[in-house]
Amino acid sequence: MRLALIPPTDPGDYQFVHTIRTRFSETDAMGIIHHAAYLPYLEEARVEFLRHAGHPYDEVRAGGTDFAVLEVFVQYRQPLRFDDVVDINLMVGKVRGTTFQIGYLLAVDGVAHATAVTVHGAVDATGKARRLPAWIAGPQFAGA
Amino acid sequence: MRLALIPPTDPGDYQFVHTIRTRFSETDAMGIIHHAAYLPYLEEARVEFLRHAGHPYDEVRAGGTDFAVLEVFVQYRQPLRFDDVVDINLMVGKVRGTTFQIGYLLAVDGVAHATAVTVHGAVDATGKARRLPAWIAGPQFAGA
Amino acid sequence: MRLALIPPTDPGDYQFVHTIRTRFSETDAMGIIHHAAYLPYLEEARVEFLRHAGHPYDEVRAGGTDFAVLEVFVQYRQPLRFDDVVDINLMVGKVRGTTFQIGYLLAVDGVAHATAVTVHGAVDATGKARRLPAWIAGPQFAGA
Amino acid sequence: MRLALIPPTDPGDYQFVHTIRTRFSETDAMGIIHHAAYLPYLEEARVEFLRHAGHPYDEVRAGGTDFAVLEVFVQYRQPLRFDDVVDINLMVGKVRGTTFQIGYLLAVDGVAHATAVTVHGAVDATGKARRLPAWIAGPQFAGA
Repeated sequence: MRLALIPPTDPGDYQFVHTIRTRFSETDAMGIIHHAAYLPYLEEARVEFLRHAGHPYDEVRAGGTDFAVLEVFVQYRQPLRFDDVVDINLMVGKVRGTTFQIGYLLAVDGVAHATAVTVHGAVDATGKARRLPAWIAGPQFAGA
Repeated sequence: MRLALIPPTDPGDYQFVHTIRTRFSETDAMGIIHHAAYLPYLEEARVEFLRHAGHPYDEVRAGGTDFAVLEVFVQYRQPLRFDDVVDINLMVGKVRGTTFQIGYLLAVDGVAHATAVTVHGAVDATGKARRLPAWIAGPQFAGA
Repeated sequence: MRLALIPPTDPGDYQFVHTIRTRFSETDAMGIIHHAAYLPYLEEARVEFLRHAGHPYDEVRAGGTDFAVLEVFVQYRQPLRFDDVVDINLMVGKVRGTTFQIGYLLAVDGVAHATAVTVHGAVDATGKARRLPAWIAGPQFAGA
Repeated sequence: MRLALIPPTDPGDYQFVHTIRTRFSETDAMGIIHHAAYLPYLEEARVEFLRHAGHPYDEVRAGGTDFAVLEVFVQYRQPLRFDDVVDINLMVGKVRGTTFQIGYLLAVDGVAHATAVTVHGAVDATGKARRLPAWIAGPQFAGA
């Protein structure tokens, strides 16, 4: 397990926020958002953060690099419901060798509903591991 | 974080196996199974295990109990691809107070492709926590 | 087959537009958005249109009415790709007895990529058919 | 609209059947299987039918041909529910120029729950239209 980031529950501790609205198709028969639906939320927030940091993911991919997901951890604290407006707060963790980690806080009206961490490595188009781009450790992506 | 189970990579260490075949709709533009698709695989294996243990999930739900997912962790070791036949090996971890944990090994032809852990609690139809059913700690579910 | 609406390919013919951005999780191994992902797009546009028309779907559901999908038709004209910004144009068709129809045009930069029609009926919480709310035929929903 | 196949509601009229079990992740807050989940069911049945007809889809794709979905139509007759065992009956319609059509009947315990039609064309790896493989019109695929 490479997970080494403990995502805080205070939105003020995060460097970026992307807001989504849950879809009806993401609910389940318990009347809440199904737990598997959170992973695409995290991914959508990563994509928007990459764009914000000056490295849109389609450009990264066109350059021959994909960011494979190596690990994912989600802690579900309070259910999300249909039509909830969810702030996905995002922070970049420490780069370690060939991997980097991102922490997330999903909040509705400032209340923590879930926290999560994803661990990523760079791969080429065939899935083979490659070095992380240098900008991953730079200030626009990794923060101050 | 409640995660306290380290899923082994030897299928022989698991108490149950359920086999699925990946769907084309679960692939992504990297040509592999998207990482979010694994969570429904784990859930399908849990449902089959509950049936095997004599407690089909629709009966459990009809009795007023849902098993909420409190945490999920997945480690992606080797990609799954379209049309892969995947053995989802499953083991029940130690019951701790009001929660239980399940460990998983996803293997193709005996080779480990992913490991995972889910942590669950019992809730009623309104989502309020309730005690675990007694059979959760029994031999058919929790193993010897 | 109840389908009786031919969705035009000119965005100017539609009464409402909701814009989404495709997700990476919605791509498939052909490198395009998987055809099944379009249905949640249509649903998201319907939900936003209901809100716009003064009848948010969670209020409709809290009032005991669900809008079941009875039929769906999609014509895929040009693929959508990851990160595309898609205008989902929406128009309400003629109410016929207990059902209504909605037409859609999915366009990227004004170019038609798909058209679709959904047919809906009102059901109660148990899934039993009920009369359509009167506002379905009113000017805010059904247009002039 | 190219749709030109009216799927019968008698399973005996179909040439192939593939059986699936619905997943909990496919339910929605109405307590039934979400309507978008049916499209991956149809696709899974097509993939199994291609294998049965001697043309596994990964081999077809490795040969440079993809079967793009041009149109899809689904008529939802009775809801599917969690844990339902669903027979997906499949028949091949008439080949027309560069497209072919497939009809489906989704039945639970012999009772029709949905019918559907998909229209397909052959494309190369870049998405450009190409001629249908000759075997599409042959007896193993298209039936007697």
